Amino acid sequence: MLIDLRSDTVTKPTPAMREAMFNAEVGDDVLGDDPTVLALEEKTARLFGMEAALFCTSGTLTNQLAIRTHTRPGDDVICDQLSHVYLYEGGGIAVNALASVSLVQGERGKLTPELVREHIQPDDIHKPITRLVCLENTVNKGGGCYYTVPEIAAIRQVCDEYGLKLHLDGARLFNALIETGETPESYGPLFDSISICLSKGLGCPVGSLLVGKTDFIKQARRFRKLMGGGWRQAGSLAAAGIYALDHHINRLKLDHSRARKIGQLIGQLPEVKAVFPVETNIVIFQLSENILATDYVELLAQKGILAVTFGKHLVRFVTHLDFTDEQLLSLEEKLKEGIVSRS
Amino acid sequence: MLIDLRSDTVTKPTPAMREAMFNAEVGDDVLGDDPTVLALEEKTARLFGMEAALFCTSGTLTNQLAIRTHTRPGDDVICDQLSHVYLYEGGGIAVNALASVSLVQGERGKLTPELVREHIQPDDIHKPITRLVCLENTVNKGGGCYYTVPEIAAIRQVCDEYGLKLHLDGARLFNALIETGETPESYGPLFDSISICLSKGLGCPVGSLLVGKTDFIKQARRFRKLMGGGWRQAGSLAAAGIYALDHHINRLKLDHSRARKIGQLIGQLPEVKAVFPVETNIVIFQLSENILATDYVELLAQKGILAVTFGKHLVRFVTHLDFTDEQLLSLEEKLKEGIVSRS
Amino acid sequence: MLIDLRSDTVTKPTPAMREAMFNAEVGDDVLGDDPTVLALEEKTARLFGMEAALFCTSGTLTNQLAIRTHTRPGDDVICDQLSHVYLYEGGGIAVNALASVSLVQGERGKLTPELVREHIQPDDIHKPITRLVCLENTVNKGGGCYYTVPEIAAIRQVCDEYGLKLHLDGARLFNALIETGETPESYGPLFDSISICLSKGLGCPVGSLLVGKTDFIKQARRFRKLMGGGWRQAGSLAAAGIYALDHHINRLKLDHSRARKIGQLIGQLPEVKAVFPVETNIVIFQLSENILATDYVELLAQKGILAVTFGKHLVRFVTHLDFTDEQLLSLEEKLKEGIVSRS
Amino acid sequence: MLIDLRSDTVTKPTPAMREAMFNAEVGDDVLGDDPTVLALEEKTARLFGMEAALFCTSGTLTNQLAIRTHTRPGDDVICDQLSHVYLYEGGGIAVNALASVSLVQGERGKLTPELVREHIQPDDIHKPITRLVCLENTVNKGGGCYYTVPEIAAIRQVCDEYGLKLHLDGARLFNALIETGETPESYGPLFDSISICLSKGLGCPVGSLLVGKTDFIKQARRFRKLMGGGWRQAGSLAAAGIYALDHHINRLKLDHSRARKIGQLIGQLPEVKAVFPVETNIVIFQLSENILATDYVELLAQKGILAVTFGKHLVRFVTHLDFTDEQLLSLEEKLKEGIVSRS
Ligand SMILES: [Ca+2]
Ligand SMILES: [Ca+2]
Ligand SMILES: [Ca+2]
Ligand SMILES: [Ca+2]
Ligand SMILES: [Ca+2]
Ligand SMILES: [Ca+2]
Repeated sequence: MLIDLRSDTVTKPTPAMREAMFNAEVGDDVLGDDPTVLALEEKTARLFGMEAALFCTSGTLTNQLAIRTHTRPGDDVICDQLSHVYLYEGGGIAVNALASVSLVQGERGKLTPELVREHIQPDDIHKPITRLVCLENTVNKGGGCYYTVPEIAAIRQVCDEYGLKLHLDGARLFNALIETGETPESYGPLFDSISICLSKGLGCPVGSLLVGKTDFIKQARRFRKLMGGGWRQAGSLAAAGIYALDHHINRLKLDHSRARKIGQLIGQLPEVKAVFPVETNIVIFQLSENILATDYVELLAQKGILAVTFGKHLVRFVTHLDFTDEQLLSLEEKLKEGIVSRS
Repeated sequence: MLIDLRSDTVTKPTPAMREAMFNAEVGDDVLGDDPTVLALEEKTARLFGMEAALFCTSGTLTNQLAIRTHTRPGDDVICDQLSHVYLYEGGGIAVNALASVSLVQGERGKLTPELVREHIQPDDIHKPITRLVCLENTVNKGGGCYYTVPEIAAIRQVCDEYGLKLHLDGARLFNALIETGETPESYGPLFDSISICLSKGLGCPVGSLLVGKTDFIKQARRFRKLMGGGWRQAGSLAAAGIYALDHHINRLKLDHSRARKIGQLIGQLPEVKAVFPVETNIVIFQLSENILATDYVELLAQKGILAVTFGKHLVRFVTHLDFTDEQLLSLEEKLKEGIVSRS
Repeated sequence: MLIDLRSDTVTKPTPAMREAMFNAEVGDDVLGDDPTVLALEEKTARLFGMEAALFCTSGTLTNQLAIRTHTRPGDDVICDQLSHVYLYEGGGIAVNALASVSLVQGERGKLTPELVREHIQPDDIHKPITRLVCLENTVNKGGGCYYTVPEIAAIRQVCDEYGLKLHLDGARLFNALIETGETPESYGPLFDSISICLSKGLGCPVGSLLVGKTDFIKQARRFRKLMGGGWRQAGSLAAAGIYALDHHINRLKLDHSRARKIGQLIGQLPEVKAVFPVETNIVIFQLSENILATDYVELLAQKGILAVTFGKHLVRFVTHLDFTDEQLLSLEEKLKEGIVSRS
Repeated sequence: MLIDLRSDTVTKPTPAMREAMFNAEVGDDVLGDDPTVLALEEKTARLFGMEAALFCTSGTLTNQLAIRTHTRPGDDVICDQLSHVYLYEGGGIAVNALASVSLVQGERGKLTPELVREHIQPDDIHKPITRLVCLENTVNKGGGCYYTVPEIAAIRQVCDEYGLKLHLDGARLFNALIETGETPESYGPLFDSISICLSKGLGCPVGSLLVGKTDFIKQARRFRKLMGGGWRQAGSLAAAGIYALDHHINRLKLDHSRARKIGQLIGQLPEVKAVFPVETNIVIFQLSENILATDYVELLAQKGILAVTFGKHLVRFVTHLDFTDEQLLSLEEKLKEGIVSRS
């Protein structure tokens, strides 16, 4: 039994989701007439109480569209040094938006109003112009930790004070909401744009959505086209998205409880120095200094456990729709046998 | 009966293609393990006798990836003034590649060795550096006309002489091949990169492929990621692609004969001044000077015929998989009734 | 005696101008306190009845600053296919502004309201967004021909109708004004930005100015900095500029009458097929088809006459401050002797 | 008596330098025939034992040219978080090169081989490609501290191991050399490119030089043109440069000893918490937490002392050619009187 905990992106569509995809009515989305895409976009916009949405291939696309639409070349983006937009989007902030970054060293990747304020550039020709703040919720690199609405509202206030835009990389937003009990509607008014991913915890094969004002989405749609992100009969993928929003949000709780369980198990391994607090579906742990994460991930793989390195001595597990209680039991056994052989 | 001739992109997956999509084995393509995507990429590369391929959302993405991978900022691209890469990709050559264009005024959008030669920049700091030549085959804006292999070989020779790369926008390449009887294998050696579309004549919902050398595709894959074109379980779309390559190429002949028939019918309309020679599945015609294309397209729509404008007095029809003989008969009747009412 | 007619850029500062440079009071312009630079900027802004000006190294810098400040990536610039901004600025429109071009085929490089109107893009995601129109006056590649104020006002009207910005590449604007008798003040209200060159007809060693609204100049100053165009004690160059504006405008008439005289002489050469109408200080002539411009320029150089090629069979002469009546006489003699030896 | 210690850029040309400028032979540098510019470029290249040099308006231009010539969009630049290229060039790395930054937190802005190694990206499509390392010597933001040749050689070794380019922002390189006793010739072999400033310690009005291999400089010259950095009769400025290289290097020792003296005086002020070690001509000091740098700079200005803020509680003084012993005495008196009035 292969236990794939590399990422929640590895989920495959369930039979019911495949059925929804098979039956989807489609049209030509570039020409604006795929009914299922339109339905998904409208459903998502309404969910957040925002005006419009755009269905895209990936979270990188929705984030990059937001960043380039909110800024112009020579602007500066405030984000955490651990943020996905800075670390894992191929240098896209520079390439797509020609924008600079001011990197915050937040606690586990989280910004605060004070940290944002400190990173705002003065009006000086030697400096780029601060235009945009990006939050990530939950923070992948921070071990899946999350913000609450009041924390975000305080950051929004600083943005308003300085006329800055605020974008949310909400690739795993529903993991946060299911923990806090907060609603998507409470998020809409706090952001100029929100990106959510369907292909992670929600279990879709492909897809992310960018949500924002009508004008903003119109501009983003133009940029999507020249970035090659226009797609034709995308309705079958959109059908998976609609299915996921209807059926796969509440079950995220299961992923979280399984992740917590894994966190406890991992914490008992002798080679593990520390485990990040498990807040959602991500477990990051630190190995003893004599063990490289790359080696450890290989040892895990030899036992049929797939994980990824997250630093020189850091390893990440992510629970998801295709990770079952049966697999959890099997994982428990394997961990108890020990990963590192002792001589 | 609605007759949709706006584009061959409007085709919807057939039941058999949907079946193939439903049954597709999938994986995570960003992590490199979607087996159906890998199979499609390998199949396509082999088809052209080239090393590698990359499955992408759109022809705009494959073209733009090719252009940006072959060039660097400050380079110059030679293409026809009618080419898709210049006219219909949202200004992407400038935005994605920071490259300039030298626009050739070819016959119906086709380059010749002489025209290419004339547009090569001298070594002068006032000028961008000529690096890439882009052909389109068939030429959409040229009424679907096509190149033959000897014509392309002559252009390749000029490129070799000056050390230029040669890219093919082959969005409708199979329409050309089915007419000339030439093979994809004969194309591979002539180009540094080839883009083909699955979502046009081949009838797939979504997808294009970029084909080239292994190193080139590796670089393009990197750019695809930062452009947001990485997708996860894309295997269901890839399955449609495999199905199309196996079943939808030969039938393009039908689209061509139907287009020729339409060309004859259209040529008899009193308001039509000229019809471009119909070589493949595209029919472009020119209206009398007192009729605007925008008005004419509206009149057509009132009769249930969808078309697009292609200039102030130009209208385009495109035949495709979902345009049947029954629809052709209906179209014939409607055209005979007349589109423009006479008072 | 070497007769250098390659360009009016070759002029060297006169003794009086050198004196002005030597005595210039200077400061640190990046810190905003070079008094001579400030004086030149204010003098120039006032001359055009505009709000502010920015002193820069080159006409390419002022043009590129204007284009990038008026546009954002994905926008489209309408300019003539013969314009300097398209032909001779190293592909800068794409590199600096990530903007596309819609190239007009005007008469001798001049736009008309109708041509501008025809090149405005529709609101379509396949297309870049038309944002800016660029005029050149006089038109270098058009043989130094010029616009009149009413011609420009008619173009301005189209720009206003579509909300487009209008930039003037006025590298040789004073050559136009001296012919039409129009004033700089009449130009200010017609344009969103104007670039003028000091180092061409006006005889300065280095320098151009960009003129526009205060906000626009503030933004352009920022871009100037990141393009490396900030300079410290630039006051000595600014002093040359002030001197030139005070003393070198009226004398342009002499350059024009000498150019006309050269045009007449050239027109009598048997190897010359045609001479463009000489309207200002530029003489472009077309050689017989059996003579290449590159060969002819070499023959001229052997006789001590320096010129540049301007096409396969086109050669350009430019008169200027350092081209004297004595040189004109010598040129006349050499031309009478004949350039192409007959066997 | 105004004491201007804002920057060593504020220096004005001395009478002897003005004389050299006045007498300079000039030509058209864009056409490649300004003899004084050519002489300066050759002299500087020879000084470093490198192949070629390019005379430019500013250190920002030479740095940005180096960065964009060494990289292509999607690449990553390793530099210190305090480096001028990251902090003070208007976000140019992103805008001009479309490159990302990996920011090192070095000791006073200095890289080490280990720190460079840690910041090299893995071969992963989520990541930009590490291509270039930038050093600054002396480090402005580090209080004018410097590297020695062995320190740099160790970094070069890491670069060679990974195939990385190494660029030196040597805006104040001669300040380092005069302290270490090392020669420019020892620097040439260590770097792929070196930028030096003439307008700082060397006292020129305008100008920097980029030095490197012939091919590299040819490419940089092309980019300079499209960035608007081509200048015509720049020979008068080049003459100042030649004069400065001949006469103003050894005297930098005076600036250093005066800076050290200032450091001692400042350290005795009650409101000063700490002074950075004074290694060259820069003095940075930290104020007590109850005093803002902006307020303190204003108090200094009221006493006729000009300085700049360098952080919330940091102030910078820079000594230079126009700062004399007489001014030092006056400064001493003013500091003894006290800057902050006590009530
Ligand atoms: Ca998935
Ligand atoms: Ca396309
Ligand atoms: Ca289709
Ligand atoms: Ca000049
Ligand atoms: Ca200076
Ligand atoms: Ca600088």
